[in-house]
Amino acid sequence: VNLRGLSAEEVVARALAGDRRATGRALSLVEGGGDRADAVTAATFAHTRGAHVIGVTGPPGAGKSTLVARVVAAIAAAGSRPAVLAVDPSSPLTGGAILGDRVRMAEIDATTFIRSVATRGHAGGLALAIPGAVRLLDAAGYDPIVIETVGVGQVEVDVTATADTTLVVVNPGMGDAVQANKAGLLEVADLFAVNKADVDGAADTRRDLELMLDLSHVTGLDREPATNPGRRPPILMTVATTGEGIDDVVAALVDHREMLAEDGRWSARRARRARFELAVRVNAGTDRRLRGLLDDPRGRALVDDVVAGRRDPVSAAHELGDRLAAR
Amino acid sequence: VNLRGLSAEEVVARALAGDRRATGRALSLVEGGGDRADAVTAATFAHTRGAHVIGVTGPPGAGKSTLVARVVAAIAAAGSRPAVLAVDPSSPLTGGAILGDRVRMAEIDATTFIRSVATRGHAGGLALAIPGAVRLLDAAGYDPIVIETVGVGQVEVDVTATADTTLVVVNPGMGDAVQANKAGLLEVADLFAVNKADVDGAADTRRDLELMLDLSHVTGLDREPATNPGRRPPILMTVATTGEGIDDVVAALVDHREMLAEDGRWSARRARRARFELAVRVNAGTDRRLRGLLDDPRGRALVDDVVAGRRDPVSAAHELGDRLAAR
Repeated sequence: VNLRGLSAEEVVARALAGDRRATGRALSLVEGGGDRADAVTAATFAHTRGAHVIGVTGPPGAGKSTLVARVVAAIAAAGSRPAVLAVDPSSPLTGGAILGDRVRMAEIDATTFIRSVATRGHAGGLALAIPGAVRLLDAAGYDPIVIETVGVGQVEVDVTATADTTLVVVNPGMGDAVQANKAGLLEVADLFAVNKADVDGAADTRRDLELMLDLSHVTGLDREPATNPGRRPPILMTVATTGEGIDDVVAALVDHREMLAEDGRWSARRARRARFELAVRVNAGTDRRLRGLLDDPRGRALVDDVVAGRRDPVSAAHELGDRLAAR
Repeated sequence: VNLRGLSAEEVVARALAGDRRATGRALSLVEGGGDRADAVTAATFAHTRGAHVIGVTGPPGAGKSTLVARVVAAIAAAGSRPAVLAVDPSSPLTGGAILGDRVRMAEIDATTFIRSVATRGHAGGLALAIPGAVRLLDAAGYDPIVIETVGVGQVEVDVTATADTTLVVVNPGMGDAVQANKAGLLEVADLFAVNKADVDGAADTRRDLELMLDLSHVTGLDREPATNPGRRPPILMTVATTGEGIDDVVAALVDHREMLAEDGRWSARRARRARFELAVRVNAGTDRRLRGLLDDPRGRALVDDVVAGRRDPVSAAHELGDRLAAR
């Protein structure tokens, strides 16, 4: 069957029946955005099964891809059907030319669904695509769904808004824990892996993390204090290249899922995800209309006036906001 | 004088007359957002002098702070009045607890204005504050204005939208150039510094960058091909800790400013900055109203319906969009 000849609804029907190629095609439709992505969402929203969504993030070079490959291999070996969305918040180049991480992924057991998601446009495109991709994989029976991000920054915050559990991967040495803290990663962590734990400085990195966690309750770093006053993310030591510590990570992920269900955060995080998705959708729509206004002759004249210092940006923005509401 | 007792207009008047403390106070007002930030903008927009805005970005740990400190010291020694905005896209913690980078900054000549900008809220707050802070420093006579970012991600893309010239700092070894490419940094570079060029692998990193630039014209990495078909970012080798190569960086920044003026991109980048600022302002306003809708009883019920699979997120977003327009 040539899947490209099928409607979005037909592709989704096959994906939900377990057709792996159709799942890949449906993900392409989600990534592409627009009406066909919306059609995939319309065909899947009533069929989700409640998969555990796990975000994996950390500084570049921390070994996230290898760790994720090991973790999902262990999960698959235990009888589950994991899926991985590897998010590359970057360039047209990375889609094809730099394959190192993906090559490692190819070693994974064939029951696991792996997909690299490239953001060909801006970060907003990714924020739109991820919830739809997760929904599709969930409806197609994959569980857990691991979202791996390559960098640090807004994309990771967006992924965290989508995930039930966020695993932050750091390395020994070079102040990696400190850098992760600077990038705000510690605030989103439900679980830490100090990867490359066989090299010098691993114990120091662990100590840095413990110290930052000790400080966190005085600095308001706790995200959900009301529902979970005493929660502290476990810190696990791993060597992803050899598989050391991987079973501990898998067990901690399962523990976290159970804890979320017990203390009520499971449904709170689901609501956070839905709220995030709705906000991204609405904001993307208004931003698109705003770009149109900025590109029309009146918008261009307004920009010129601001550049020339003839017009206050505050009042110029108000004028644009009024035009946006009037359409 | 207790600056806190003065109106925003009075503080700005002092800043424009050269009062350093007043400039600091005005920046606090800009950072704080709201009506007083708008008042600073209203009091400065007609007084900008056209300072060169330089963004400095790169992976965590690349030595950006030290490089920036050296570069602005050289610029100040040559008789200019540089300012530095050090952006920390992260946590409440970083504001106070981790001072390493800032301590190095304190070594800079007293004629340079240095300011650490923390985003206590989300990234959008920073995107709102940066254009206002740049405008104030420009009106107060600082030139160039250097915006240094700590991480990689959306914040850097936002800073690039504000900058005339973007300097990307990478390190030898550990695939740093490749990681920078993954994070999309190569696409925004007008100039590269391979910092820590005295360690092994510096030549390899330079070669990696050259290769990626060779590929860039086939992959659409060039941002402004129409105005500048043959432009290729220079790659400079630096050792920021000793000062090696710093004069070359300063010269390359001046060259880039002159080239922008000659080929018409100077005004194009000013328009990009104004357009970005207007879009951020309008979008922040609509997002704020949207959050209100999501928090009211109807919004909460809608989120619950999406979570339960009773409602298609696409149609739920349309309903929210309609409510937003109707207000």
